[in-house]
Amino acid sequence: MADVAVIGASGYTGALAARLVHRHPELELVAVTSRSDAGRRLDDLYPQHRVPLVLDAYEIDELGPVDAAIVAYPHGASAPVVAELHERGIKVVDLSADFRLRDVPTYEEWYVPHPEPELIADAVYGLPERYRDEIRGASLVANPGCYPTAAILALHPLAPHLNDVIIDAKSGVSGAGRAPTETTHFVSADENVTPYGVGRHRHMPEIEQELGVQVTFTPHLVPLDQGEMVSCYVHLRADVDVLGLYEEAYAGEPFVELSNRPPGVRDVRETNFCRIHVHPDERTGKVLVFAVIDNLWKGASSQAVQNLNLMLGLDETAGLL
Amino acid sequence: MADVAVIGASGYTGALAARLVHRHPELELVAVTSRSDAGRRLDDLYPQHRVPLVLDAYEIDELGPVDAAIVAYPHGASAPVVAELHERGIKVVDLSADFRLRDVPTYEEWYVPHPEPELIADAVYGLPERYRDEIRGASLVANPGCYPTAAILALHPLAPHLNDVIIDAKSGVSGAGRAPTETTHFVSADENVTPYGVGRHRHMPEIEQELGVQVTFTPHLVPLDQGEMVSCYVHLRADVDVLGLYEEAYAGEPFVELSNRPPGVRDVRETNFCRIHVHPDERTGKVLVFAVIDNLWKGASSQAVQNLNLMLGLDETAGLL
Amino acid sequence: MADVAVIGASGYTGALAARLVHRHPELELVAVTSRSDAGRRLDDLYPQHRVPLVLDAYEIDELGPVDAAIVAYPHGASAPVVAELHERGIKVVDLSADFRLRDVPTYEEWYVPHPEPELIADAVYGLPERYRDEIRGASLVANPGCYPTAAILALHPLAPHLNDVIIDAKSGVSGAGRAPTETTHFVSADENVTPYGVGRHRHMPEIEQELGVQVTFTPHLVPLDQGEMVSCYVHLRADVDVLGLYEEAYAGEPFVELSNRPPGVRDVRETNFCRIHVHPDERTGKVLVFAVIDNLWKGASSQAVQNLNLMLGLDETAGLL
Amino acid sequence: MADVAVIGASGYTGALAARLVHRHPELELVAVTSRSDAGRRLDDLYPQHRVPLVLDAYEIDELGPVDAAIVAYPHGASAPVVAELHERGIKVVDLSADFRLRDVPTYEEWYVPHPEPELIADAVYGLPERYRDEIRGASLVANPGCYPTAAILALHPLAPHLNDVIIDAKSGVSGAGRAPTETTHFVSADENVTPYGVGRHRHMPEIEQELGVQVTFTPHLVPLDQGEMVSCYVHLRADVDVLGLYEEAYAGEPFVELSNRPPGVRDVRETNFCRIHVHPDERTGKVLVFAVIDNLWKGASSQAVQNLNLMLGLDETAGLL
Repeated sequence: MADVAVIGASGYTGALAARLVHRHPELELVAVTSRSDAGRRLDDLYPQHRVPLVLDAYEIDELGPVDAAIVAYPHGASAPVVAELHERGIKVVDLSADFRLRDVPTYEEWYVPHPEPELIADAVYGLPERYRDEIRGASLVANPGCYPTAAILALHPLAPHLNDVIIDAKSGVSGAGRAPTETTHFVSADENVTPYGVGRHRHMPEIEQELGVQVTFTPHLVPLDQGEMVSCYVHLRADVDVLGLYEEAYAGEPFVELSNRPPGVRDVRETNFCRIHVHPDERTGKVLVFAVIDNLWKGASSQAVQNLNLMLGLDETAGLL
Repeated sequence: MADVAVIGASGYTGALAARLVHRHPELELVAVTSRSDAGRRLDDLYPQHRVPLVLDAYEIDELGPVDAAIVAYPHGASAPVVAELHERGIKVVDLSADFRLRDVPTYEEWYVPHPEPELIADAVYGLPERYRDEIRGASLVANPGCYPTAAILALHPLAPHLNDVIIDAKSGVSGAGRAPTETTHFVSADENVTPYGVGRHRHMPEIEQELGVQVTFTPHLVPLDQGEMVSCYVHLRADVDVLGLYEEAYAGEPFVELSNRPPGVRDVRETNFCRIHVHPDERTGKVLVFAVIDNLWKGASSQAVQNLNLMLGLDETAGLL
Repeated sequence: MADVAVIGASGYTGALAARLVHRHPELELVAVTSRSDAGRRLDDLYPQHRVPLVLDAYEIDELGPVDAAIVAYPHGASAPVVAELHERGIKVVDLSADFRLRDVPTYEEWYVPHPEPELIADAVYGLPERYRDEIRGASLVANPGCYPTAAILALHPLAPHLNDVIIDAKSGVSGAGRAPTETTHFVSADENVTPYGVGRHRHMPEIEQELGVQVTFTPHLVPLDQGEMVSCYVHLRADVDVLGLYEEAYAGEPFVELSNRPPGVRDVRETNFCRIHVHPDERTGKVLVFAVIDNLWKGASSQAVQNLNLMLGLDETAGLL
Repeated sequence: MADVAVIGASGYTGALAARLVHRHPELELVAVTSRSDAGRRLDDLYPQHRVPLVLDAYEIDELGPVDAAIVAYPHGASAPVVAELHERGIKVVDLSADFRLRDVPTYEEWYVPHPEPELIADAVYGLPERYRDEIRGASLVANPGCYPTAAILALHPLAPHLNDVIIDAKSGVSGAGRAPTETTHFVSADENVTPYGVGRHRHMPEIEQELGVQVTFTPHLVPLDQGEMVSCYVHLRADVDVLGLYEEAYAGEPFVELSNRPPGVRDVRETNFCRIHVHPDERTGKVLVFAVIDNLWKGASSQAVQNLNLMLGLDETAGLL
């Protein structure tokens, strides 16, 4: 059993990570911390997760011996904590954006001045379907954003051939986080669909880094709690065997499903699966790709556990099926 | 045309009142005010209402000449403003709880020290189906709470005979107001049902005042935006012609509908109607009554306009059909 | 007062058309018919519409004298009825697809053998923002589909310059009609987003006819009842003053709103408005356009009334504000 | 490993039972059958369950050797199949109502003529919190209805003292089953709350049988997919230590949680838990009890697995945590 701490367990993704670790057959959840809710029981805050631990304030010296940590802090706040844990030899999966972008100026253009730029080189981008071997040997993994997870899985098999990429995304409200705002108010989100971050969403540079092509990316808020769909419209540079590329790329992948009909986000709710439908459109010559994930699971917390499984030499699917 | 101001037009009920006045054939919306959003356009805050006015800070001396006002302030904050308007001879419909309870100690037990207790005697409880004549002559009307509106309309015909009253209510999230909180967060309310205020909801004394009997009242939050149902389970002191009492009580009422099957809250969405189904249960001897309203309309803003119509000598249904 | 019949008033759009005519200040609803529900009261089927008429079986000879009719039959079934009414000099707005496509082979490729091809030449495409003058003089108007209404209003100002057009649409479940199916089951649609008709939706040729350019169009079902958004991603042939074109095209339009921020479908719920946000994206050179309508209102029934107003020489906005 | 068949696996509860058995560490899902969908893959019908089996037509002789079966047929259709399986020595959990009521005339009053009345004596009512020992030795278990499960768990500790019982229930739409109907249409259920079966719901006699008291029971449909709440208002015959009775009754119960605040149905979504809040109301002398379950899980399929665990001598919680 490996001992694991979840740092920042009072937000949606941290709390879910705590639950997944707590129920994991080969991991032991030894500590959960929170900046805002220290002293409260996690199962009081999230009855549905049934994690009977008290949230502590984070103090590196009071953490006790742990083998690994999942950090679920906001960008900017995460990097210093990650650095501290990393220095002590604790394997870290970071749910924030702090170590996802390899280029510091790009990070600083979209986020804040980077608190720990020298650590970026040590970080592996935590998409197992793309970097499985690197993750196995990594001590620091930057867990992808939810939209990038879906978008990259949707288009990765076509990456070398992509020419013009439109990604229209739809996400449930949990993606906006636990903070109550006008946007997350039930009466604002219910019976509504709204685009946001038009032309300037922070997940765009992350998608572009991995796909190696400029993308137009627009997320929309839809009235559901968990789940995310990306609808991709792409033009290819060359005439390739589109379906063959997907079958080859995802043969043997435990968490990617190719579907011969359009998926719904319900198909993957509360799972680590990504389900993909590819439609080469003869009429227009474009390729349409639809991918669904649960934004809190494969888009965050269960993917973090998948990464942890790899980093700790466990079965990649342990605790996730 | 009567000139009307809406004081506190940035909350859900104030904004809707502004829209109803703005579109009313015989009322002129001359001013909208807000404590939190002064300077913003109301149609920027609520595009769906399409009221092209700028919200002002409230200043009695800058209000200009108005015939009537709808005040949509929280309890405690409302009474002083109502008093000020009343003093200048402006007819007022108050959406707050400040003038609903005739007994000051009861008010102060459930709310706050009453800022204007001497004004209570001047106020008429604004349920037209019960106090139509008094409202016609009133200069100050205390608009009922949403649950009391539904509950009193549901049980008023049986009032003299009521013995044991259980009211199980279900309300959409707009009833909790515009403030973003953990409760109103989409992810908290969606796919959920939760009782609240168990044994201690402030609308209980208001219902009891009007029905003249002790009630057990429990509201539940349900995942919809607008709409409210009360399910009433009552035992009667005497054997009466239940259905006859309802038909008699509501004959000719423009906004009360008796239905021979259970109603849904959708039946009255965005209307001033209350729809009622009465089921005398032979098996148990109880009477079951189900009533639905739109909590923002008949439960607040459109009922305020109905009251205003009566106070100003207009057709009671003007602007409401 | 003009006498109007609604043929096929038991479906969602027919029933709403009946309500709008019934409350219209210058129209008189004289008959409602239904193939499936003849004999039932319309306000029993749709309490929320409060139309106190009994549905008749449709019989041209028993219809009585009417000035105009709105026909809400499915495609294929509509054309013969439209022809019959037209022959008797009754002005008709047809909600079906039967007279929208000017090219018979195109219609027959996407629908069925056309029952009344010779009547197509008499029909005007009922988008007032584009064909107002023609509609004024028309005796037969083909009311646009919901997606075409939103998509054409979104892109019409750019039509001559469009080069590559992607339209990603999201629609509430009422768009799928009143028939209970696996797709419209609450448990299928709730907490879900699903693309459908990928690469082969019947509204595509209608959009292409009006915009004069090939489009990639994908609708998605989202968990709400009424409302529709189109998110358009286009590349232009030339460098034009995009915002200027929109302002020019829609100056004075009573039902089109240009917004400087992304709209939500709630903004237009239960209205005849279309709200549009245009975002020229400097980074990619594309133009992004987002438009929202209520699929049952501007996407069907209220647009039918807008057309009827024009055909009958009434104020275009009568009964719609 | 015990070999288990699920008979009738194409409905919501049968399909979920199949998933729970398929993932169970000590059960082997060897067959799934369907009357309506034989020949289809279960993971095609329900992608989210990921059960890679083909649905067969049910034929007792082609079933192969199985140790136990879960039958998920409608009432009336279930009993003959249950009898056949029982005769061959296969342990059966029956999800239908056929063996829940011990009194044949009562069954026949509320349902249909009973096809296998002599088998009723062999059946144990499958609420482990009440009949654990009997279930351990049973060969036929009648799985409780969803409302009875919640209602009996809510009130069982008070059963000897109950005098006047009102149960107001709220259920998600999955409780109405997979058949698409006007009631289950998204547009009917969304933004709606509707009581149904007023005064005559079939779960009433089942609740009365177990509580031994007459109850007034009214279910309401609320707009969510899974989840159920019962709000109980009871008067007691005697002055008892209410909270003490609950603590005593449920000490050590693995799936019943007593909560000191009102629960929400989300708290138990996709779990076998029942969460209960008890509020003795000093003001009125009544006791209010709120209980939540997932209607498809503890209200049906996971409770069936809990029963199977007991019948097969396994850990009661196996496959359920």
